[in-house]
Amino acid sequence: MTDLAATDLTPLAAELTGSLTTDPDILATHSLDESEYRPEGQALCLVRASCVADVVATMRFAHARGIPVVPQGARSGLSGAACAVDGGILLSVRSMDRILGLDEENKTVTVEPGIINQDLKDALRPHGLAYPPDPGSVAMCTIGGNIATNAGGMCCVKYGVTREYVREITVVLADGTVTRLGHRTVKGVAGLDLVSLFTGSEGTLGVIVEATLKLVPLGAAPLTALATFPDVRTATETVAAYMATGAAPSLLEMMDGMTIGLINEIADFGMDSSVGAVLIMQSDAVTAADDIAAFSETARDHGAVDVAFADTPEESEMLVAARRSAQPGNEHYARNHGGGQLIDDVCVPRSALADFCSGVDAIREETGVTIAIVAHAGDGNVHPSVFYDHSDPASVAAATAAFDRIMALGLSLGGTITGEHGVGTLKAGWLAEELDEGNRRLHRDIKKAVDPTGILNPGKMLSHL
Amino acid sequence: MTDLAATDLTPLAAELTGSLTTDPDILATHSLDESEYRPEGQALCLVRASCVADVVATMRFAHARGIPVVPQGARSGLSGAACAVDGGILLSVRSMDRILGLDEENKTVTVEPGIINQDLKDALRPHGLAYPPDPGSVAMCTIGGNIATNAGGMCCVKYGVTREYVREITVVLADGTVTRLGHRTVKGVAGLDLVSLFTGSEGTLGVIVEATLKLVPLGAAPLTALATFPDVRTATETVAAYMATGAAPSLLEMMDGMTIGLINEIADFGMDSSVGAVLIMQSDAVTAADDIAAFSETARDHGAVDVAFADTPEESEMLVAARRSAQPGNEHYARNHGGGQLIDDVCVPRSALADFCSGVDAIREETGVTIAIVAHAGDGNVHPSVFYDHSDPASVAAATAAFDRIMALGLSLGGTITGEHGVGTLKAGWLAEELDEGNRRLHRDIKKAVDPTGILNPGKMLSHL
Repeated sequence: MTDLAATDLTPLAAELTGSLTTDPDILATHSLDESEYRPEGQALCLVRASCVADVVATMRFAHARGIPVVPQGARSGLSGAACAVDGGILLSVRSMDRILGLDEENKTVTVEPGIINQDLKDALRPHGLAYPPDPGSVAMCTIGGNIATNAGGMCCVKYGVTREYVREITVVLADGTVTRLGHRTVKGVAGLDLVSLFTGSEGTLGVIVEATLKLVPLGAAPLTALATFPDVRTATETVAAYMATGAAPSLLEMMDGMTIGLINEIADFGMDSSVGAVLIMQSDAVTAADDIAAFSETARDHGAVDVAFADTPEESEMLVAARRSAQPGNEHYARNHGGGQLIDDVCVPRSALADFCSGVDAIREETGVTIAIVAHAGDGNVHPSVFYDHSDPASVAAATAAFDRIMALGLSLGGTITGEHGVGTLKAGWLAEELDEGNRRLHRDIKKAVDPTGILNPGKMLSHL
Repeated sequence: MTDLAATDLTPLAAELTGSLTTDPDILATHSLDESEYRPEGQALCLVRASCVADVVATMRFAHARGIPVVPQGARSGLSGAACAVDGGILLSVRSMDRILGLDEENKTVTVEPGIINQDLKDALRPHGLAYPPDPGSVAMCTIGGNIATNAGGMCCVKYGVTREYVREITVVLADGTVTRLGHRTVKGVAGLDLVSLFTGSEGTLGVIVEATLKLVPLGAAPLTALATFPDVRTATETVAAYMATGAAPSLLEMMDGMTIGLINEIADFGMDSSVGAVLIMQSDAVTAADDIAAFSETARDHGAVDVAFADTPEESEMLVAARRSAQPGNEHYARNHGGGQLIDDVCVPRSALADFCSGVDAIREETGVTIAIVAHAGDGNVHPSVFYDHSDPASVAAATAAFDRIMALGLSLGGTITGEHGVGTLKAGWLAEELDEGNRRLHRDIKKAVDPTGILNPGKMLSHL
């Protein structure tokens, strides 16, 4: 363990416009994200940067002394990427949250990294513009964190992930160098695509301090359908068949029966707890009515017991709110059953969705572990939640084994261990399983080239490669 | 200059399923792409790889001896990236051109790198599927080359560039290591985005030997409008205004009066040579008729003298064929005027299109150099062609200066030196102008990490950083 007392933080504190604290309670709070990961050891301090110069000062200070730095936004991540490392500086850019410029004609916005995703959406709405990516944490997560994790969400099935909206970023490198990457224009191939390299790098390559994002016109209010199925298989087969037609829904989500039951325990969305699975489908296209009809037909052909339609925008919104309640429902369940929840994030080819979910059934039966499933089904991105009792070592072991088996299952079906939540500490070992040796070597060599002393978020995404 | 005789190629030739030649005439042909760049010195040999093992053998051979390697596809590039380097191996993957697998349900195709873009399109059409990117060289360029340059085209205004269609690639690294990068699923964040890093890396990081591409449903036949303007300014102002409405045309191209005149010299597309500029606009959306009407209204509001509509698919196709004849028209002109043509590829914010073209006017007037303009106008991507007489040093100098001033103009308007053609040898110096020092350092360090001995395409994109 680092000798914290040996590090004199006074020179850093003196340079900051923002603040520096070593208060143990504040450090404890800021040492966690929304994952189950509990870091061992203790952070050195928390820097709340209020400007680029604060980030530069922090990186220079840390670089000169070989001190680890963990960049942080809202700490809403689910993989431990923003959790403390022993003896490291927690570098929060959460309070750098200004909109620096809106270019309505070219449909871009330039922001500081700490702005909340939903706050940005709300600010754009009066201008008739939208920033589509909408992770489940949309109300609390930051754009900087979204870029650092290449965040997804429910809109991705039509609108794509964060990377597709990042035109230009300003980053502070390990030694405090400030550099601008990418271009503000629609197209650009001047040099290597370093914007994409940093997007999804989970704080291991640099600290994002500014971003220029592509915007789209605010979409029309969508039409919504709710299809009810006797089981998960018929629901997932519907998804594969519907998407194979070339359909472009703006949302296509699945929840299994257990998830619906858990939602019903925390709120009344009028959903029938006895069903095996539901699909919520939206279209915001001018062809929405036809899209809904086509989806309905596919669902009925594949065994849906009912397809209902939202008659008003309020009803549409309620169905999406029900889907957004899945994680709160899971958390409520976990609190009453020992507190533990590990969330898988496997993405498989859509044609493998049904087999993947059957495989999870088998894991559930063989291990006796409780697992609930929600999915950004249209993208093949499935979130099985594995529940366990923190106080029972056997329960912890069984859950961990099930969590791992689900990733192995995903890989065996041509999928990836993480579609949108990222690697962090939670899946660092599994990343090494997914990548071949040449790929692992590229990761190691690029990390070493960009952060030669290894101070940026050590022990996380790249630690097992 | 390398002592070519000193290198015994026998061990390499013995390992190849494909062929190896040192025939001077063949080497001379394969030493050039479609740019004006004429490499000094001489290639060592040409390897025509017929399988991944051939590429591995070539890279191992070269790596052990420190011999440069230039990966090649169809050599249709416009920036010199595929041209020979002195003493280097030309490594062509052109004959690796098979379709390895089509996954209709998940809408992906896996191909070898040498397949011609148009051949892939033609093979997909009976399945109702499309691979959108359509560079001007679509009939001759390869998918491997498209990925290596992150190629664009006319469809990008709606469908985006090559990078958005590359899910997974297999690459052979400098030392012959074979590695698979990316994922076949719709989403995936397992590790750094190395697919994007290699896409557009112009052969400086590895040799692409396989790719899995995202496909889309084959679009409907588009409706087409042709708007005629008194000058380039009114045409470009129309583009900025129309795109600012949030319009999503599937094609929006501009040609200036000189370009139209040159097209008319090689074929009869029924275009009026006396106009100042034209815009060709297409929509393949279900709202195409409305889109065309809205475009027409915007064009008339901004000074169009006429807007005509294609009444049949054949008329639509003829207008696109006219646009595709711009480069042949330019080449015909160049052949009759000293042979020289330098093609700029600046991309600017759409709001700066009019000022950019006015700036080109000023450069034309001040230098007396002949410059014709075509543009993927909807993306702000402009191709001014600068003509000159190869045999007249003053003409060469004036053209080079004008070519450079056009890039400086683009940068001054918030643009980039290259929207889609790439850096190659032609713009290697200008890349150093566009990138800040931190960015240049990242490029140098990443190149060194991935290709430590610097054998992959030296003297090209990254040579001036």
